[in-house]
Amino acid sequence: MFTRLSSLVRTTTTRTLRKMSSDTTGAATAAVNAAIDKVEAAPNTSPKAAGDKKSSKKSKKQESQFLLKTPKGTKDWSDKDMVIRDAIFGSLSSLFKRHGAVTIDTPVFELREILTGKYGEDSKLIYNLEDQGGELTSLRYDLTVPFARFVASNSIASIKRYHIAKVYRRDQPAMTKGRMREFYQCDFDIAGNYDTMVPDSEILSLLCEGLSGLGIKDFKVKLNHRKILDGIFEACGVKEEYVRKISSAVDKLDKSPWEAVKKEMVEEKGQTEEVADKIGEFVKLNGTIREVLALLKSNEILAGNASAQKGIEEMTVLADYIDAFGIADRISFDLSLARGLDYYNGLIYEAVTAASAPPKNANELKEKAQKETKEVEDASEYVGVGSIAAGGRYDNLVGMFSNGKSIPCVGVSFGVERIFSIIKARAAKELEKVSSSHTQVYVMAFGGGEGWNGFLSERMAVTNELWKAGINSEYLFKTKANIRKQFDAAEKSGAQVAVILGKEEYPAGQIRIKLLGQGEDSDEGELVKVEELVDAVKTKLSSLNRDGLDEINRLIRGL
Amino acid sequence: MFTRLSSLVRTTTTRTLRKMSSDTTGAATAAVNAAIDKVEAAPNTSPKAAGDKKSSKKSKKQESQFLLKTPKGTKDWSDKDMVIRDAIFGSLSSLFKRHGAVTIDTPVFELREILTGKYGEDSKLIYNLEDQGGELTSLRYDLTVPFARFVASNSIASIKRYHIAKVYRRDQPAMTKGRMREFYQCDFDIAGNYDTMVPDSEILSLLCEGLSGLGIKDFKVKLNHRKILDGIFEACGVKEEYVRKISSAVDKLDKSPWEAVKKEMVEEKGQTEEVADKIGEFVKLNGTIREVLALLKSNEILAGNASAQKGIEEMTVLADYIDAFGIADRISFDLSLARGLDYYNGLIYEAVTAASAPPKNANELKEKAQKETKEVEDASEYVGVGSIAAGGRYDNLVGMFSNGKSIPCVGVSFGVERIFSIIKARAAKELEKVSSSHTQVYVMAFGGGEGWNGFLSERMAVTNELWKAGINSEYLFKTKANIRKQFDAAEKSGAQVAVILGKEEYPAGQIRIKLLGQGEDSDEGELVKVEELVDAVKTKLSSLNRDGLDEINRLIRGL
Repeated sequence: MFTRLSSLVRTTTTRTLRKMSSDTTGAATAAVNAAIDKVEAAPNTSPKAAGDKKSSKKSKKQESQFLLKTPKGTKDWSDKDMVIRDAIFGSLSSLFKRHGAVTIDTPVFELREILTGKYGEDSKLIYNLEDQGGELTSLRYDLTVPFARFVASNSIASIKRYHIAKVYRRDQPAMTKGRMREFYQCDFDIAGNYDTMVPDSEILSLLCEGLSGLGIKDFKVKLNHRKILDGIFEACGVKEEYVRKISSAVDKLDKSPWEAVKKEMVEEKGQTEEVADKIGEFVKLNGTIREVLALLKSNEILAGNASAQKGIEEMTVLADYIDAFGIADRISFDLSLARGLDYYNGLIYEAVTAASAPPKNANELKEKAQKETKEVEDASEYVGVGSIAAGGRYDNLVGMFSNGKSIPCVGVSFGVERIFSIIKARAAKELEKVSSSHTQVYVMAFGGGEGWNGFLSERMAVTNELWKAGINSEYLFKTKANIRKQFDAAEKSGAQVAVILGKEEYPAGQIRIKLLGQGEDSDEGELVKVEELVDAVKTKLSSLNRDGLDEINRLIRGL
Repeated sequence: MFTRLSSLVRTTTTRTLRKMSSDTTGAATAAVNAAIDKVEAAPNTSPKAAGDKKSSKKSKKQESQFLLKTPKGTKDWSDKDMVIRDAIFGSLSSLFKRHGAVTIDTPVFELREILTGKYGEDSKLIYNLEDQGGELTSLRYDLTVPFARFVASNSIASIKRYHIAKVYRRDQPAMTKGRMREFYQCDFDIAGNYDTMVPDSEILSLLCEGLSGLGIKDFKVKLNHRKILDGIFEACGVKEEYVRKISSAVDKLDKSPWEAVKKEMVEEKGQTEEVADKIGEFVKLNGTIREVLALLKSNEILAGNASAQKGIEEMTVLADYIDAFGIADRISFDLSLARGLDYYNGLIYEAVTAASAPPKNANELKEKAQKETKEVEDASEYVGVGSIAAGGRYDNLVGMFSNGKSIPCVGVSFGVERIFSIIKARAAKELEKVSSSHTQVYVMAFGGGEGWNGFLSERMAVTNELWKAGINSEYLFKTKANIRKQFDAAEKSGAQVAVILGKEEYPAGQIRIKLLGQGEDSDEGELVKVEELVDAVKTKLSSLNRDGLDEINRLIRGL
């Protein structure tokens, strides 16, 4: 068995198997075995391997193995990826502040009953914490329900808030498409009683401003209204208890053809062919707000439907505000947009780009993947990025936490990992040049021969002066360091300036400053007095006028 | 029962009970009942209430109740507290960058076996996720073990990294002392093979720089060395298998008198009185590094102990570096410092302030609290803030994940919530003035009479221009808004400048700019051309020279 595993170490890259110290518990061993099962089921594994498993149980006390990886659907972020993602957060949080929002932070887990009954069919994707003798809790599924709970428990009448934090969904991951089990949401929401469509239109404006600011050029914002959608279902003959189910079916139109959705309505969701066909006529409509409104206003089926008429009225108001913000060309009023979540009750929207859609031959690729492995661990090959930002109005959610005293809310959530995957695909080459560290100065010592001690304490003291002046500085962690190694380390650190303590110069009160990145022997640098070092370094740095953060922000904006 | 609960709503502030929609599951109801039990056990609740519980079960299908709160030991952060905490993060992350660190992000949960066997007695405090048919996982307990896993799984030879993120411990909370179950750690670690004590001393320098930068003036850094401590135990006659247990006992000396610790050693941890007394002579030693080193070097008991001599040698090297960084006056070499975690194997340290210690009459207060309630939910009254930053060297942790190929590591972790509680206590009054929003400009419309439509679309368009120019701006979400309400909203938003669209002026191509916060009628403001608005606003804002962030940073630094 362990020989078998050793050979797998060499053949699998993402699932490296390592030895563990001897203190693995029984439970952990069970998990190891379960994890091993999956590896065993992977391609190129003979049926013989499964047979080996039993014998391994005997030897589990001698040594045990486990997978040195992060949990399924999660990953570590580091290096340039981390810098890019941080820059995306920075861009979005200044956007949110620009629109007057304050930020809040809620716990990563909530009392389980807070989340119950908020997510419809998707509730099965919630992560629960183990009952360890206290309260029953679950990891948050989004930031919207915790926000509503926050508004209710603090009796807040109105707030604009943003929240950038991780949420958790036990879904099928598609890692390279930015679809993960642990992922960030960047949410901006407006709670409070305001005039119709005024906050909604600001959110749409912010959505467009946010995506443009991240260099996403080809996005469209699909728009619909739950009141119109529900009115259509009602007017076409769908009974009330089926409305959400039919809404879920319509929501699949971005992935499935109408025929498949119709089949679901008729065979699984209790509708007649006639009702389905009537719905089909509506959900194929899309265009500018005014175009679609014209069609809906003249439609006889909807004429007597109160819900649809209310929605039409609100969309008419919205059209003017969309013009005021100058974003009409981004908007597509699309009656096939339904959104999965239960809590929306007004305007709904999602932003998509070319990368959102699955590949043309998705079904073929999916079947191929399923044939190759019993359980497909990652769906990246046959899904698209999906929507990159989405949201809507949810007027009744706060009321579920406050005895019915509701506060109307509307908001939008940006999917940062998905946006990241698009930016990375777009600017892969330029982003390679980005430095992940922020070091400005590298402090070195030059010397040798008799009595040379490496000036370690001296380098520490000088670096300390630079730190106190707010200058990002490093030095090599060796008592005696040769010149070559110091220059290599300086280059790796991304430092722009070297501060050099010479064996003779430094005791004489002088110190050398030299530009880096221009070949080590390009010039001798300049000699300054020790007490003038900090000022001289500051002058040198400001003359370089190189700001790493600006650089990455320009790249992200696609400039 | 429900009447009873209603009356509790009025009497409890932190545990408001609210109605829930009708879809509560059975499990959630059980949790509700459990939670209610705790409320019932609280003071001012008559025994009668407990008797009511059974009858409530009958009616649970009609309506159910739950606690509108965050889970035990967690809290929402918002408003000024959030701004202060963010400023602390900002201060620490620039500190970390100043020292050349890159940042990483790891998942909030890890495969359970990654955490197994790393935390000694504290392992029982780990939160597990429920087994929902996949891998067994647990919430991270610190950022150190995930860092070691990250270093091992990416075969990293050297890295300086910082990580600011939440960790989870099922401990007794003391909320107002910043001791929570969900809390932030701000970690800076150096991994790599370097010369003795060089990275260690940089970490100590960074620790002092970090706390000073947060305005903590009275802190001390207690220092010890695991090799010296283990050598002392060995030389005093403690058998190897008892060393970690005796270390744990010594670790309690900051909360308990020597007599209690000695009793634990003798009665629970298998030592003779003689051995305990010998240890007692050592652990009462503290002073500057050179003072304590002098005592240890001349000590006959330790003379032949290899471990102690190795530690003494390293501390001798450290003393010089501490001087180079100019932090000797902050350091106390304290042989009673032991640190609880298993993985440390070299230098260990923790920073304390006056607020770290529990109140003088802690035992008395604790007994009182326990007499009053069966289960004490919060220990704030009888504990101190504890250490505000701590860390040490752990050379063997990475090796536990990489088949023994270890990478030496040393690091420090800042406890942000604890530091927050100290800053808040120190500067409560000044911090009240801090604004939690970042709005600079409020866009208003003045008008009335016949044909007045409120200029909503116009306010949107003007605000949109300001947003595009990067100016944080808001306007009132009403089609027609009266002047009073717009000024009130502007004041609440913290805006410094009003941009006013007058009923006659705006159609004539002019717009008014007015300073806020100086009384609404103080001046008429100045009239500019619409196309010059953005530039005029920028000029006005820069003339104010008021930077909210600078203000909060000055407050935090205690200037």
